[in-house]
Amino acid sequence: MDQLKGACIFGQSGGPTSVINSSAYGIIRSALDSPCITRVLGAAYGIKGVLNDTLYDMGREDPEELARLPYTPASALGSCRYKLADPEKDDTDYKRILEIFKKYDVRYFFYNGGNDSMDTCNKISKYMNKVGYDCRVMGVPKTIDNDLWGTDHCPGYGSAAKYIATTCMEVYQDAHVYDSGMVCIIEIMGRHAGWLTAAAALASNYGAGPDLVYLPETVFDMDRFLEDVEAVYRKTGNCFVAVSEGIHYADGTFVSEAKTSATDGFGHAQLGGLAARLADVVKQRMHVKVRGIELNLLQRCAAHLASQTDITEAYRAGAAAVKAAVSGMTDRMVIFQRQYQEGNYFCRIGFLPLEEVANKEKKIPLDWIKADGTGLELPFLEYVLPLVQGEPELSLEESLPRFAMLKKIRA
Amino acid sequence: MDQLKGACIFGQSGGPTSVINSSAYGIIRSALDSPCITRVLGAAYGIKGVLNDTLYDMGREDPEELARLPYTPASALGSCRYKLADPEKDDTDYKRILEIFKKYDVRYFFYNGGNDSMDTCNKISKYMNKVGYDCRVMGVPKTIDNDLWGTDHCPGYGSAAKYIATTCMEVYQDAHVYDSGMVCIIEIMGRHAGWLTAAAALASNYGAGPDLVYLPETVFDMDRFLEDVEAVYRKTGNCFVAVSEGIHYADGTFVSEAKTSATDGFGHAQLGGLAARLADVVKQRMHVKVRGIELNLLQRCAAHLASQTDITEAYRAGAAAVKAAVSGMTDRMVIFQRQYQEGNYFCRIGFLPLEEVANKEKKIPLDWIKADGTGLELPFLEYVLPLVQGEPELSLEESLPRFAMLKKIRA
Repeated sequence: MDQLKGACIFGQSGGPTSVINSSAYGIIRSALDSPCITRVLGAAYGIKGVLNDTLYDMGREDPEELARLPYTPASALGSCRYKLADPEKDDTDYKRILEIFKKYDVRYFFYNGGNDSMDTCNKISKYMNKVGYDCRVMGVPKTIDNDLWGTDHCPGYGSAAKYIATTCMEVYQDAHVYDSGMVCIIEIMGRHAGWLTAAAALASNYGAGPDLVYLPETVFDMDRFLEDVEAVYRKTGNCFVAVSEGIHYADGTFVSEAKTSATDGFGHAQLGGLAARLADVVKQRMHVKVRGIELNLLQRCAAHLASQTDITEAYRAGAAAVKAAVSGMTDRMVIFQRQYQEGNYFCRIGFLPLEEVANKEKKIPLDWIKADGTGLELPFLEYVLPLVQGEPELSLEESLPRFAMLKKIRA
Repeated sequence: MDQLKGACIFGQSGGPTSVINSSAYGIIRSALDSPCITRVLGAAYGIKGVLNDTLYDMGREDPEELARLPYTPASALGSCRYKLADPEKDDTDYKRILEIFKKYDVRYFFYNGGNDSMDTCNKISKYMNKVGYDCRVMGVPKTIDNDLWGTDHCPGYGSAAKYIATTCMEVYQDAHVYDSGMVCIIEIMGRHAGWLTAAAALASNYGAGPDLVYLPETVFDMDRFLEDVEAVYRKTGNCFVAVSEGIHYADGTFVSEAKTSATDGFGHAQLGGLAARLADVVKQRMHVKVRGIELNLLQRCAAHLASQTDITEAYRAGAAAVKAAVSGMTDRMVIFQRQYQEGNYFCRIGFLPLEEVANKEKKIPLDWIKADGTGLELPFLEYVLPLVQGEPELSLEESLPRFAMLKKIRA
């Protein structure tokens, strides 16, 4: 075994999730327990923390507080959306990163994020290799969007999917209490891939979810949409619709950003999001009661409704990255490989070269989407259901969340 | 004891809550178990179900499904916002109600709702008394708004308060992940009373909630608001604000409905709600990242995050109404009386004449609100904390909610 001794740095990057801190805990715990890793440093605000030399000594945190991380939403050390330049054109950042790595004798670098973050991770890996600095670089996947290439699914998705399905089931009850009908439109995140919005179909599968689900994988047509809504409303006296924020017209224009709308032909900036816009269009056309609901940040930080499967897998992804790196692996991202044993789902850990996953997007297979683009087929439901299973034992104080409180002692 | 034998009708009225069905179960279970009550009828869509003779025979429901009602959000039998006319001017509806009461030999009427519903209940009670029809009429309180007069608090409020506090704590984590600051504005229900919005201060009390909380009990001033936000942002690099949908200017105009706004002086109908509006005003002034979040229906139907205290008290309110009526009481609404035994909160049941509670509103005492109108004082926190306690054992199937499914067999 190729033993390499030194410090590690880990960073959290991109939009947060309910369980990204579970991966952090997987990394921290495993790194603290590894004889090869001499010091565990957490970067404040992702790669920015490396560039700014703002690093926290995780070994000086209270172990009990660290153990709360899996149940604490959002990025405990802070995150960033910082894109590294092409090192051929501008290697300033890379030189600085190397300087910091040398300063702290960093031999392990773990980066937890989505597509863009894997690009960062890949570039750092290639640079360190090029300059001959011995450092093992591993990517740990994370994104509620579930659009990372090469992995069956991403940590963060299962919890967001569970939140969306549960919330749709609850809103369904509420949106059907009056005998006067209503059109209810719920807006869900996902700019380019519809995985999150599709999770609303889990609720429909239990008879208490959206009648219509629109994804960015297909082309949105406003007239067809209005016809669909009217048809359901005529038949049932109500209509419940889930839309992805990324639905777009045939020319690629996002419906949320299209200049013209039913209310304002002057091109004024419109307040409110897509749900409010569509609600307005439906109201103008059908003259019925309409309500637009935007799930907003709630869908990615609702740790109280996380999937225990997701929490566990997020932890395993972080721990596996450390174990593999200590064993000699580098330049890889952790991936999940779905398996079934006697019909029961489980998840195997694998690895893919960073270069293969960086900057790629995975969308919902078109044959998992209903031919008319208004819902999901059984294979999707079978795919998502195992990911939302299990209720975590939350840490509560007086029935309110008790999240991890880190001391964040500078290294 | 004044024994009166006959059927009972109960109805659910006004906006639903997470626990209104728990009160329904308290009524149904107690009525089914009472030897005096010969038949338990549930009205479809509140008083409309009586007027339309759409009544369900609750005795024919599966007891196991009925037992799921306390964990099923929204009004299981449907609700309405129907205002009965002044019987002196138009007694058509009253004659019809009497006709239905006679048809089914109804001797007990239980109505579960808020201010307006207590008005309905009161009018029916007085009419039956006037025409000499022997029927005991009881009101059961319900409203997330917590604005019913005469009771310490209302069933429904505790669960909504818990949802709001928990959600604010989660959003707080998410809204602080980047080193680039953000102003986050969260809009909470409550047109005239700020009880719901005030619950956000519970999160602040744990160091993870809104910096500023604006209630309809005080006058809103846009300039002062912008100064407040800027001051917090300058000091901390972030600002998290909770606003009640009912905040209004000195002349009484709701901020959400004021015609002029920073973006649109043409008086066009604005899409989106108050949070989107305020976010826009802040953005125009401060040129920083801003996000508006509207909790919308989610705050009143999130049964997965209900307070067990609230569920239990809602049940007790329904059961107490039946017990009291069977014992001879009529023309009263159930109220809660707060007690402390060795420092521990508990809730006694009392009764008030319907006339005293109908159409009145209870607001937050002004001395519970910070003098500058941007937050809550300790007495409010001490008031609300006991109401959010306890986690229900939810009925789940494959980790998703399994709500009551009633057969709704017509009487």
